[in-house]
Amino acid sequence: MIGRYEKIDLPVSKVRRYLEPGPIVLVTSAFGKTRNIVTLGWHTVMGFTPSLVGCVIAAGNHSFELVRAQRRMRDQPTDDEADRPRGRIGNTTGAETDKFATFALTPQKAQRVGAPLIRECHANFECNLADDILVDKYNFFIFEVVKAHVAPSPGHPQTLHYTGDGVFMVAGKIISRRSQFRSELLDD
Amino acid sequence: MIGRYEKIDLPVSKVRRYLEPGPIVLVTSAFGKTRNIVTLGWHTVMGFTPSLVGCVIAAGNHSFELVRAQRRMRDQPTDDEADRPRGRIGNTTGAETDKFATFALTPQKAQRVGAPLIRECHANFECNLADDILVDKYNFFIFEVVKAHVAPSPGHPQTLHYTGDGVFMVAGKIISRRSQFRSELLDD
Repeated sequence: MIGRYEKIDLPVSKVRRYLEPGPIVLVTSAFGKTRNIVTLGWHTVMGFTPSLVGCVIAAGNHSFELVRAQRRMRDQPTDDEADRPRGRIGNTTGAETDKFATFALTPQKAQRVGAPLIRECHANFECNLADDILVDKYNFFIFEVVKAHVAPSPGHPQTLHYTGDGVFMVAGKIISRRSQFRSELLDD
Repeated sequence: MIGRYEKIDLPVSKVRRYLEPGPIVLVTSAFGKTRNIVTLGWHTVMGFTPSLVGCVIAAGNHSFELVRAQRRMRDQPTDDEADRPRGRIGNTTGAETDKFATFALTPQKAQRVGAPLIRECHANFECNLADDILVDKYNFFIFEVVKAHVAPSPGHPQTLHYTGDGVFMVAGKIISRRSQFRSELLDD
């Protein structure tokens, strides 16, 4: 969701709450004076401790080279308002455009990595490249989340999920089934 | 979604429509007379052609050894009815239970692989293990979808998405923004 959020720290082992449901994320990258934002739908949580996230960044993408060069990035659940110009980030290329300026997004300094956070996102995850073994073969990057900032409200933001062909699913209702879970599968 | 679906073939390059939004999936596996079902939320599309899907299956899981042994599995979007007993599949282990019987799911013979399909799921994806390079380090399996069967209706089933801690998000409304996409990003 896009807004003006005051964020608090989240333990990095808990980012699955935001990423496991499968929303589109915005990934920022920077190298020297060049920075970019890319939208991603091909990502998965891979571990709690360390906090690992794998994702595919297409090799033809401007961010691909920036991430490879800098080995750092951000990973952030994104806008639920597909009608806004920001919904079109994936339809432009950062090789010709400063997407922060084009889409009126505010870069913020991160604590642990060099690339900027996006102020308007409801969550910001600072990531370092942890393993590039599958980059050449599958364009698959494995990142470690080293710092997480989230808006305390809403607890479950209305994320966007991509189905391909220009069609999105908007996150629906939240239901708890904690009572049906074995205790070791719950947080506390 | 669980139901009694008549399914049609889907080109394997198009399974992203079902998987990219990030639903929980049921994965079946079989080796000899042993079969199992596991629920998964940690998966990502990795390619169109070949049709690749990566997923984490925990090493302590009964399915982990079955998949390693047989190198084949099924991958299927799952129940949107978390209240049914089937919603609890992830809370039992196949080492002690035949989950097909316990959860009243019907195994169906697949066309290209040995493990059974689940009749009640709205989509069935037959998969072969394509790359096990990250299994030892991350329990991450890369599968190729070799055959896809989907119910023609509903076009966008109401999937379940897991946020951790016993809490699920149910897929919400579908919105099209095809008019804002560059033509090369659309199917046709």
